[in-house]
Amino acid sequence: MKKIAVITSGGDAPGMNACVRAIVITAWQHDIQVIGFRHGFRGIVDDLNQPLHPDDMRLVSQRGGTFLKSSRYPEFREVESAQRAAAVLDKHQIDALIVIGGDGSFQGAHHLAKYWSGQVIGVPGTIDNDLAGTDTTIGFATAVDTAMEAIDRVRETAEAMARVFLIEVMGRHAGFIGLHAAIASSAESMLLPELEPQPKIAEIADNILRARASFPDSSYVVVVSENLWPGGVAELAKSLSKATGVTCHPCPLGHIQRGGRPNAQDRILAMQLGHAGVLALLDGKSEIMIGKEQEHVVEVPLALTFKRDKPLDPRLVDLQLGLQGVNFTSKKGAETA
Amino acid sequence: MKKIAVITSGGDAPGMNACVRAIVITAWQHDIQVIGFRHGFRGIVDDLNQPLHPDDMRLVSQRGGTFLKSSRYPEFREVESAQRAAAVLDKHQIDALIVIGGDGSFQGAHHLAKYWSGQVIGVPGTIDNDLAGTDTTIGFATAVDTAMEAIDRVRETAEAMARVFLIEVMGRHAGFIGLHAAIASSAESMLLPELEPQPKIAEIADNILRARASFPDSSYVVVVSENLWPGGVAELAKSLSKATGVTCHPCPLGHIQRGGRPNAQDRILAMQLGHAGVLALLDGKSEIMIGKEQEHVVEVPLALTFKRDKPLDPRLVDLQLGLQGVNFTSKKGAETA
Amino acid sequence: MKKIAVITSGGDAPGMNACVRAIVITAWQHDIQVIGFRHGFRGIVDDLNQPLHPDDMRLVSQRGGTFLKSSRYPEFREVESAQRAAAVLDKHQIDALIVIGGDGSFQGAHHLAKYWSGQVIGVPGTIDNDLAGTDTTIGFATAVDTAMEAIDRVRETAEAMARVFLIEVMGRHAGFIGLHAAIASSAESMLLPELEPQPKIAEIADNILRARASFPDSSYVVVVSENLWPGGVAELAKSLSKATGVTCHPCPLGHIQRGGRPNAQDRILAMQLGHAGVLALLDGKSEIMIGKEQEHVVEVPLALTFKRDKPLDPRLVDLQLGLQGVNFTSKKGAETA
Amino acid sequence: MKKIAVITSGGDAPGMNACVRAIVITAWQHDIQVIGFRHGFRGIVDDLNQPLHPDDMRLVSQRGGTFLKSSRYPEFREVESAQRAAAVLDKHQIDALIVIGGDGSFQGAHHLAKYWSGQVIGVPGTIDNDLAGTDTTIGFATAVDTAMEAIDRVRETAEAMARVFLIEVMGRHAGFIGLHAAIASSAESMLLPELEPQPKIAEIADNILRARASFPDSSYVVVVSENLWPGGVAELAKSLSKATGVTCHPCPLGHIQRGGRPNAQDRILAMQLGHAGVLALLDGKSEIMIGKEQEHVVEVPLALTFKRDKPLDPRLVDLQLGLQGVNFTSKKGAETA
Repeated sequence: MKKIAVITSGGDAPGMNACVRAIVITAWQHDIQVIGFRHGFRGIVDDLNQPLHPDDMRLVSQRGGTFLKSSRYPEFREVESAQRAAAVLDKHQIDALIVIGGDGSFQGAHHLAKYWSGQVIGVPGTIDNDLAGTDTTIGFATAVDTAMEAIDRVRETAEAMARVFLIEVMGRHAGFIGLHAAIASSAESMLLPELEPQPKIAEIADNILRARASFPDSSYVVVVSENLWPGGVAELAKSLSKATGVTCHPCPLGHIQRGGRPNAQDRILAMQLGHAGVLALLDGKSEIMIGKEQEHVVEVPLALTFKRDKPLDPRLVDLQLGLQGVNFTSKKGAETA
Repeated sequence: MKKIAVITSGGDAPGMNACVRAIVITAWQHDIQVIGFRHGFRGIVDDLNQPLHPDDMRLVSQRGGTFLKSSRYPEFREVESAQRAAAVLDKHQIDALIVIGGDGSFQGAHHLAKYWSGQVIGVPGTIDNDLAGTDTTIGFATAVDTAMEAIDRVRETAEAMARVFLIEVMGRHAGFIGLHAAIASSAESMLLPELEPQPKIAEIADNILRARASFPDSSYVVVVSENLWPGGVAELAKSLSKATGVTCHPCPLGHIQRGGRPNAQDRILAMQLGHAGVLALLDGKSEIMIGKEQEHVVEVPLALTFKRDKPLDPRLVDLQLGLQGVNFTSKKGAETA
Repeated sequence: MKKIAVITSGGDAPGMNACVRAIVITAWQHDIQVIGFRHGFRGIVDDLNQPLHPDDMRLVSQRGGTFLKSSRYPEFREVESAQRAAAVLDKHQIDALIVIGGDGSFQGAHHLAKYWSGQVIGVPGTIDNDLAGTDTTIGFATAVDTAMEAIDRVRETAEAMARVFLIEVMGRHAGFIGLHAAIASSAESMLLPELEPQPKIAEIADNILRARASFPDSSYVVVVSENLWPGGVAELAKSLSKATGVTCHPCPLGHIQRGGRPNAQDRILAMQLGHAGVLALLDGKSEIMIGKEQEHVVEVPLALTFKRDKPLDPRLVDLQLGLQGVNFTSKKGAETA
Repeated sequence: MKKIAVITSGGDAPGMNACVRAIVITAWQHDIQVIGFRHGFRGIVDDLNQPLHPDDMRLVSQRGGTFLKSSRYPEFREVESAQRAAAVLDKHQIDALIVIGGDGSFQGAHHLAKYWSGQVIGVPGTIDNDLAGTDTTIGFATAVDTAMEAIDRVRETAEAMARVFLIEVMGRHAGFIGLHAAIASSAESMLLPELEPQPKIAEIADNILRARASFPDSSYVVVVSENLWPGGVAELAKSLSKATGVTCHPCPLGHIQRGGRPNAQDRILAMQLGHAGVLALLDGKSEIMIGKEQEHVVEVPLALTFKRDKPLDPRLVDLQLGLQGVNFTSKKGAETA
């Protein structure tokens, strides 16, 4: 193995830079050269290549985003795109490709592997944590911290004004950020896609009213996953305001959740997985994802990562549902009980 | 003077707690007792009183929000509300009231003064900085830092994906947060209510297209004040996406801008003004606001603070317009020029 | 079981408050009352008790430090202290005690159990992570983030001035914070107590000089565990400055590493373990620690937690040693090779 | 004027990058080219030049440190160094030089002006704020925020353990950071070089003991300027521990105070002054510093900035001394009084 390529693909995630650093350093230590393509699969197709040397990796881990740049590139589903990418990779005499990304990016990698003879390895880099085969993904821990800190801020206003806030967090179609942010921010309630059946407006409204009765002078925070409620938290707020008679304030956190310097957990995870990815290539592996399960680095068939659904940790769901529950018992009520 | 009251009123602002601390300590040093009313004017009317002692002020300055709680309370425009508030204040033998708040709160204070014989002093506490008679207000500097840090985060995604972002910041009907955040975040463009005439869609679109032509692989950030564009940045994004053919992403920062620990500037300002407020009361002053102009603590007739419009600093406007301009000149263009 | 007690003991750690919150809420849900004693074991002996109710737990998880206060209390090794503590606990009709703390606190709990008939459970709360039987401890993740962010700051000065910095991090007698902070901050070198034999001055100096030869215009950061080098980084800096002829700057991070709001990981861990602690008590368990291994909550005999040594994760040690190594190869050298 | 040079010199300060950005953009808008020399005056002497183009300035303002790098370079006091620097500047046909730095850097600029015919302008960039002729300097506001946040962290441990902490902050030989950080962190005491006569150990000890008597369960924080107490806070802690019988913990904050992303205030100030610096050059000015007084940009003879002493704001000193004082009155005492 003489030369490998690396891309960051899909939504950017904090820690992607640390992953590239570990890949480049580890590769060079095994006398393998590394080329990056900017903007993910689009950059392979358009040959936006950039040689990557350990010297340039000294201080990239500290930075958010991805210096290799990324893109969403649905066109890559086409056969022709994969064939062009394969041709570009061959032109550069690339022996293997490491794709740092999520669900869609791994489908792209899987697709490419049908038309290219080199080894293809995935490293999970997405804030959404919606990839089976790994307990966590690069960027998830930082995104949860960012969402939590934002909710902490909103909580201060909510508490000062004794308000109800509906805070929308990211997660595509999964509730990982929602669940973790709800626990970490001591949310009074959470609405996640995995919690079936979804509660009805009347039920949520009832919980709010009971909490307001016990704590009339306090805040009430509902963490809501994006893509869950039709019309988002803006519509949900209207319905709940009507149902409760209490103004419910919508607060979508938006794109701030993606940015920011990676926290230590994400930097370390990213370097571990990037390092292991190069070793797996040297070992001849292909069409796998390097993940982490139960504190161990694992190799998982690439196709399984996006074909299986990844469930929320039921112990964490139960924990939050339990901690939420007590809030409806006022001190007074508890004492007379 | 034996007893004074203090309230925090309107939207909460970081630094309000430090202001209350300085008021309480300074008053006690002059053998004056202090009572707080929770939730602003509503708390006076409903007699939600709470004695405030220096011992309880030891570590409140570090916290965001307002431990005295606040509220928006439009009912206070009525004569009856002011009369009831006056009665409550008299019942507690209050000699003077300090109102920490913004525009609407000072109108409330002015209104109250017609029906109550005690002294009334305002201290400017609002993130919006839209009060005449003071260069800055408690909470403004922190809100600008918060907006800037949020834009810094969004910038990382924008840069990774080479995207156009329209970032909506707070400010009620004034562009102070917008202007300062735009400079501090090196925004490519800003839309503020004070910049007349407002640019047309075609003009903004043209600027975006020229920038994309020079820097096709880079981000473009427009800072937009709230309440400026009909439908907000969501509608603006639609119009601009259509006009440019480039997807423009809306990103309202929302309520996170209000929360968070106050920065040093706001804590120091808050203590200075709170301290000066008590001294002004001792001096017999009433119906004034304690402000800060050109680094000096000043006293301004209360009515002037909300009757006059406060302009943006034209030097800062020119600075940003100048710094924005150059971004349309590509390096290549400059070299051939 | 009708009433339990909880203390936070030893050095405070971010997340202790979230743990107390989960304990109090879970206990009340099982109709168990909770009493806290302030300042750890000293507070039991001196009966500094404080009833804890779920209503007061609403917003404690967000705060750093421990609202229950803590202390180091070596006097508790004496038989008489344990007997007095037992008497106080009996006086309050306490059925069980949960101790949130580290090494020394668990020895105290073990000691108390000899003289008191109630159940005793430990929850690992220490930034040092030096407890066997659990992969991580409450506060460790936040402390690593804090150390990393501080090193990131120092790195900027180091890079601007092309300086060598020796940064001392906490860890008592273990290298966990040092190892994780070194990886996360892309340190050029690390000195940890577990890495035997310790390198000699000449060896460290040689590495510095080789790095300076390759990157004369760059920074060089050594992460050093406290209690490792006689005289600390101040003395090490003198020796290395002499050996290299390059000024080496000492930078002990000190007490800032202990404070700060807990990150999401520590809040969630703290709530999981506190919740599980109450369930274990209901299950009749005693003299165990509730830990987390390989993502599962586990119960470990209390005595084992402080009698066994806990090793660093050798995979992380190898990762960092590997990533450090490459930095001595300059780009030029690599190209000619 | 066709070509100007810019350096950052002395200790790095957050905001220096934003200043360079404004200089480069403003110069290009007037068809002036800009060259940077890395590492300050040393970089001129050694001709470490680097052309600076607006395109490269897009996203430098967000970063801490100085991408132009800096150095302390006492050798520049020699005539020969200044002559060599003049020769290098002439070789590059530089018409004017902008020096971003502090006290020592402006002495260097003044020295250079004797041996070089070009215009020389200083922009105040130092965290210490110890330059006469300007109310504040680039980097000062961020350094105060950083020190305050660090003290906030230490406060949490101090409060949990009811400890006395002596926190040493930067400032070279001036108390600006100390004063502002003491107010902002609600410190119980401060020791600054400007407060004459310095209090004796017995006096400080007495204050500590009185506070401990009133608040036995609370923290006590003394903010101490560096270079003030012989042996620093380590020695002071020993003396005070002996004098009070209470362990006093030393906590030097060290180099973390210099790093970090600039806050909004520093970024805006930096751009204002950099922009004004170029305009002053176009106006033919030389041997001046661009400062800010009472919210106005001002021009001050360069020599005055380091020949005069700059006093602390006496109103802020009085404010903090006043707010400190009350802490010795316990609630109980006040009630019986």
